[in-house]
Amino acid sequence: MAPARGRPRDPKADDRIAAAALALLREEGPGGVHVEAVASRAQVARTTVYRRYRNRAALLAATLDQLGDAPFPAPELSVADKLRWVTEQAVQLVEAQLGRGAVAAVLADSDPEFTGALRAHLEGQMRALQGQIDADVAAGRLRGDTDAEALAGLALGAYLGELLRHGRARNGWADGVVGVLLHGTEPRQR
Amino acid sequence: MAPARGRPRDPKADDRIAAAALALLREEGPGGVHVEAVASRAQVARTTVYRRYRNRAALLAATLDQLGDAPFPAPELSVADKLRWVTEQAVQLVEAQLGRGAVAAVLADSDPEFTGALRAHLEGQMRALQGQIDADVAAGRLRGDTDAEALAGLALGAYLGELLRHGRARNGWADGVVGVLLHGTEPRQR
Repeated sequence: MAPARGRPRDPKADDRIAAAALALLREEGPGGVHVEAVASRAQVARTTVYRRYRNRAALLAATLDQLGDAPFPAPELSVADKLRWVTEQAVQLVEAQLGRGAVAAVLADSDPEFTGALRAHLEGQMRALQGQIDADVAAGRLRGDTDAEALAGLALGAYLGELLRHGRARNGWADGVVGVLLHGTEPRQR
Repeated sequence: MAPARGRPRDPKADDRIAAAALALLREEGPGGVHVEAVASRAQVARTTVYRRYRNRAALLAATLDQLGDAPFPAPELSVADKLRWVTEQAVQLVEAQLGRGAVAAVLADSDPEFTGALRAHLEGQMRALQGQIDADVAAGRLRGDTDAEALAGLALGAYLGELLRHGRARNGWADGVVGVLLHGTEPRQR
């Protein structure tokens, strides 16, 4: 890539732009994340944003990239502890990382550019999680017929169902989810 | 209650108002359901709406009441078939009954009056479902330690997770969900 013309890039501006975009996402939902608002909050010129991100889609992708990858639980943890971990990761994703407005916007597809950016981010996370589940299946730590894709999706959806019904995770909610995901519902063979 | 003064209530207007409110909910989300819009779409005067519903909260509750109660699957169906039924009921609830905009509005709590009305409606449905699950547990058709509340919540959340990730139910999605909810993930005892 050719070096940027004009003044050299200011790394502090990079950080300020990234932090401003993430704060706007959490506070206002994806509708709040656009070049003008980000520039204003980061106290930089719009051209300073455009020099880094050629359009809003690139800015959205970079905003979500900051969230990084969740570390996985240690392989030797019990299945129950791992299920609890993924169940609670979904709470973190919604409440601490994205904000509820971002999740709502994707469900309603009210901002297709953000829908695309979030799904791309989420699929990276979910593929990594599914890889861990597959490794646990191969090691005999999970049932041989465990569907990693379905399990990962259920762990993600569990909190969305709880949020829809109750607006928050009630005490004991994660215990109940872990119990069903661990033991299933089919009566034991007699 | 004292009889309404003025012209007698017109049952056709009742139906038109109810149908208009539900159509607006599905097409525009809860923000579209207010007395003026409903009156306009139903081609009645605003006072005709207010004669039936004293405020928007009452109108929202009546709109959701029209959705009625889902019939339950026959008790003799297999556990797998029942799990499939509840999993697919959640798709119906979002796609055919409420619309995605209504679900998104509750997750973001962007319309607290609607959030309250939807949660009240949903809790009636979920309590009935949990009663059926408890009956299946008592009859030995489900594991004795099945947590009805957690299972009902997972069945509801499963489609929300799928919708967030993929925007629709992919082929085979319900099979995967039913497999996990049926068998769990814990390796069989050797």
